[in-house]
Amino acid sequence: MSLLVVGTVAFDAIETPFGKTDKIIGGAATYASLSASYFTKNINLVGVVGDDFPQAMIKEFNNHGIKTEGLQIKQGEKSFFWSGKYHTDMNTRDTLDTQLNVLASFDPIIPDSYQDCEFLMLGNLMPKIQMQVMQRMKKRPKLIVMDTMNFWMEIAMEDLMENIKMVDVLTVNDAEARQLTNEYSLVKAAKKILSWGPKYLVIKKGEHGALLFHNNQVFFAPALPLEEVFDPTGAGDTFAGGFIGYLAHARDISFDSMKRGIIYGSAMASFCVEKFGTERIIGLTQEEVEERVQEFIDLVQFDITLV
Amino acid sequence: MSLLVVGTVAFDAIETPFGKTDKIIGGAATYASLSASYFTKNINLVGVVGDDFPQAMIKEFNNHGIKTEGLQIKQGEKSFFWSGKYHTDMNTRDTLDTQLNVLASFDPIIPDSYQDCEFLMLGNLMPKIQMQVMQRMKKRPKLIVMDTMNFWMEIAMEDLMENIKMVDVLTVNDAEARQLTNEYSLVKAAKKILSWGPKYLVIKKGEHGALLFHNNQVFFAPALPLEEVFDPTGAGDTFAGGFIGYLAHARDISFDSMKRGIIYGSAMASFCVEKFGTERIIGLTQEEVEERVQEFIDLVQFDITLV
Repeated sequence: MSLLVVGTVAFDAIETPFGKTDKIIGGAATYASLSASYFTKNINLVGVVGDDFPQAMIKEFNNHGIKTEGLQIKQGEKSFFWSGKYHTDMNTRDTLDTQLNVLASFDPIIPDSYQDCEFLMLGNLMPKIQMQVMQRMKKRPKLIVMDTMNFWMEIAMEDLMENIKMVDVLTVNDAEARQLTNEYSLVKAAKKILSWGPKYLVIKKGEHGALLFHNNQVFFAPALPLEEVFDPTGAGDTFAGGFIGYLAHARDISFDSMKRGIIYGSAMASFCVEKFGTERIIGLTQEEVEERVQEFIDLVQFDITLV
Repeated sequence: MSLLVVGTVAFDAIETPFGKTDKIIGGAATYASLSASYFTKNINLVGVVGDDFPQAMIKEFNNHGIKTEGLQIKQGEKSFFWSGKYHTDMNTRDTLDTQLNVLASFDPIIPDSYQDCEFLMLGNLMPKIQMQVMQRMKKRPKLIVMDTMNFWMEIAMEDLMENIKMVDVLTVNDAEARQLTNEYSLVKAAKKILSWGPKYLVIKKGEHGALLFHNNQVFFAPALPLEEVFDPTGAGDTFAGGFIGYLAHARDISFDSMKRGIIYGSAMASFCVEKFGTERIIGLTQEEVEERVQEFIDLVQFDITLV
């Protein structure tokens, strides 16, 4: 089924203990749509860039089955730019520079040809824009997954709460779940968030894996233990893209299907962090993806039969 | 098969965000042997206490199938005492007081009736004492599991390294694995440690679960997401006890059996943290243990069939 991905398409400059990049392609919707493209070829992108954004990358999107009719190109303007530096533990980072540019006036127009999308991925963006997207869909998608971040909890909490009530799946990291609920225990935080409306909650714990909560059930997927985490930028978006991409492919939004989605998302995220930016996830083969999923199976599989 | 557990049998005074205790029973060998007793009833304890240690607890050990012939009782002396305070995240703690008492002159005598033990758990202790135990076993046990801590890496690193070369399974936490190897990546740290001799390495990550490394294989078990972690004291020892207790019961030290041991150990540790001290693990039923293991199965089980 068709998938709509909304979010930033942008430039990043990244510094990690392993090196630094010049301006490279980044953005939540970039990572999410590329990641989803390994599971479904019916992806529609909504975002905004300036005329500094390379045509070659737009072609790359199209090659991955990602339609870009909804990617607005603002002539004479510049793309959103973020620059950050990671600490040794790779779990914390400092923002060095943020230039909103085209994002400051982003009006998320949904082309008519996108209106039949049944899966909606709302990448991290200003909550008001995420809301506009939901309001502009003539028919409510079958599944709405929304990602957000601590920044919006600080400056737009009321708007964010309105969104949370409307989505099916919320994805946040552990610190954000705690911030959102004032609960230290993730189990308590999850109960509180699910009571606000979402049927599913994904709590991303970086190198410590991800939890999926639904009613009183919980599922856990580890992160793959890697020799090096080279650059964590985009890992969360890549995870979300693999998750919803798998669900759109499977046409199944049951809890069991979501579990599989979490594993596919985790597998995609494990590729993402192996190189800078989108480098690793742009040219994967289906065989590589399946091999990686097999590594996740081997990582957690055990045979205890209780009577 | 019979299991020998060596380690501290002691008093603790614990403060957590949820409350504080007076002097309660603690010690690595206490937790490990109680935990193991849910899997095998052929457990031999070696340790030392003062005459302040309650006879009722020794009877409790015996009721759990734990033989105490090797538990030395020093008349006129006091038991080892540790006091600590946990921070809000429960992953860090400050030691408030340590009184070695009987431990200062501990000579680990192995009774003749213990000499046939085929499984040996060396709980966290001064490395020289752990080594004495290994040297005093007339026949090398089939499996030696050793736990240790950062403290010994700082003051007795050479002794500790001698031990590491001799054991089959080393258990450390993530910070200790990094400290031991000067490697931030746990995968690299594991490779280095395995190259020193142990066939298996368990890296305990507290609320983030545990990793088992063997050759180029890795297995991961999550910690059970709990509403509250009430008191983490003894969780690592309880984990180790459940692990080796299961292996001694199964008489199987293959990698697949070790995986099951990790799950049983994790299940036991998840009980331990629910109440202060040994309160929760002292009176469990087999049904409770099996139900908890089923929760672990449900937590990580997914069905992806790759062709």
